[in-house]
Amino acid sequence: MKRFKLTLEYDGQPFVGWQRQKNGMSVQQCVEEAIKKFCGETVVVHAAGRTDSGVHALAQVAHVDIAQTADAFRVKEALNHHLKPNPVAVIASEEAPDTFHARFSATERRYRYRIINRRAPLTLDSGQAWRIGRTLDADTMHEAAQRLVGFHDFTSFRAAECQANSPERTLTDIRVSRYGEEIDIAVRAPSYLHHQVRNIIGTLVPVGEGRKPVSWLATVLRAKSRAKAGAAAPACGLYLEKVIY
Amino acid sequence: MKRFKLTLEYDGQPFVGWQRQKNGMSVQQCVEEAIKKFCGETVVVHAAGRTDSGVHALAQVAHVDIAQTADAFRVKEALNHHLKPNPVAVIASEEAPDTFHARFSATERRYRYRIINRRAPLTLDSGQAWRIGRTLDADTMHEAAQRLVGFHDFTSFRAAECQANSPERTLTDIRVSRYGEEIDIAVRAPSYLHHQVRNIIGTLVPVGEGRKPVSWLATVLRAKSRAKAGAAAPACGLYLEKVIY
Repeated sequence: MKRFKLTLEYDGQPFVGWQRQKNGMSVQQCVEEAIKKFCGETVVVHAAGRTDSGVHALAQVAHVDIAQTADAFRVKEALNHHLKPNPVAVIASEEAPDTFHARFSATERRYRYRIINRRAPLTLDSGQAWRIGRTLDADTMHEAAQRLVGFHDFTSFRAAECQANSPERTLTDIRVSRYGEEIDIAVRAPSYLHHQVRNIIGTLVPVGEGRKPVSWLATVLRAKSRAKAGAAAPACGLYLEKVIY
Repeated sequence: MKRFKLTLEYDGQPFVGWQRQKNGMSVQQCVEEAIKKFCGETVVVHAAGRTDSGVHALAQVAHVDIAQTADAFRVKEALNHHLKPNPVAVIASEEAPDTFHARFSATERRYRYRIINRRAPLTLDSGQAWRIGRTLDADTMHEAAQRLVGFHDFTSFRAAECQANSPERTLTDIRVSRYGEEIDIAVRAPSYLHHQVRNIIGTLVPVGEGRKPVSWLATVLRAKSRAKAGAAAPACGLYLEKVIY
């Protein structure tokens, strides 16, 4: 058996998310079926982050054990062949030791959230960003977001269906930057609660619009109540950008 | 009658191109039908560049005369409403004098061509860039492209169906830049022959791959024969980026 570390890029739009579900096609099923076509083996592919339905990945990391003799380059090429026409691609592949685990060995996960701040509907970026018509102040959003950095009880930003044992997490870094009509939010943390990033974004937006004060993020955090935070931002703006080991 | 200057963004994938055709939906027809829905008027919309089937626009410019009293903001909002669900958006709208003509008043058109230089298939950028697996040297492509700058007979880069009276054009500027795995080619000229940009890109690629020498662009230009140039690059990588007046 050889273990392979796969770096995956995907457009989340047609999928029910990373994880296998009964109600539709998942990225995991897509990759597992491509492996089956390549070498005939029925495998389980483990990923660093279980992205939600509609969430994209620029560099999701997964691992899989394959019995058939093959080198990393051939695995990448064969999987890309069998993944077609699904919008999933293996952008890197390497052999990894048995001690490597895509999920448990990861020390940091980086997400990026794309907002396009304009009145006109999206065309080329449709399904790949959240369009917000009201003018947002990215500097104010950045300032407000800094109140979340560090080790906190993130109950207010946790989805009801979150299965984590503890609501405590460390947010390593969050940066809000404007590039023309686009606002990018870059988030770094060892791990996240379910919907944590989308709930943070959804709470930052009213601050950016001026409907809530800069101090609101701290108020919501202290409340430890999901009802106090903003609505979850749509999945289409979220990208799993990088996984650190 | 009021004349409006409209700046349009569109994803070229579902369209037969800018211009009305019998064989499918054009961007022009889409915009003209949205105007009809808005004010009941049957109009002709004139654009700066007649983009081909599959070619995108970040800022196509068009003008239209409307009898109904409306301000530029309302025209933009109404057209964006009626353009849905087509991937076409009015990103700016302003009143223009009767002397303004989107096509004839334009002094420069800027195009951008996106190549993604990697073996893995495209996912998020599918239909929005040309993927090339063999490694390209962007610096060499840039150097080769400089031989085309200036006033020349571009017969070698002209489509057979080109209707222009003269094969002579001025290429103001061409720049090839690499950003990670992406290679962008920015082209500026007052006007172009049919398929000129795509034929130039298709001739630069063999130079970037090292299959042709840097001097090849000059050789092809001098030959004044379409048969000497490379194949046209696919439409999906081409964007009308800006029109100067």
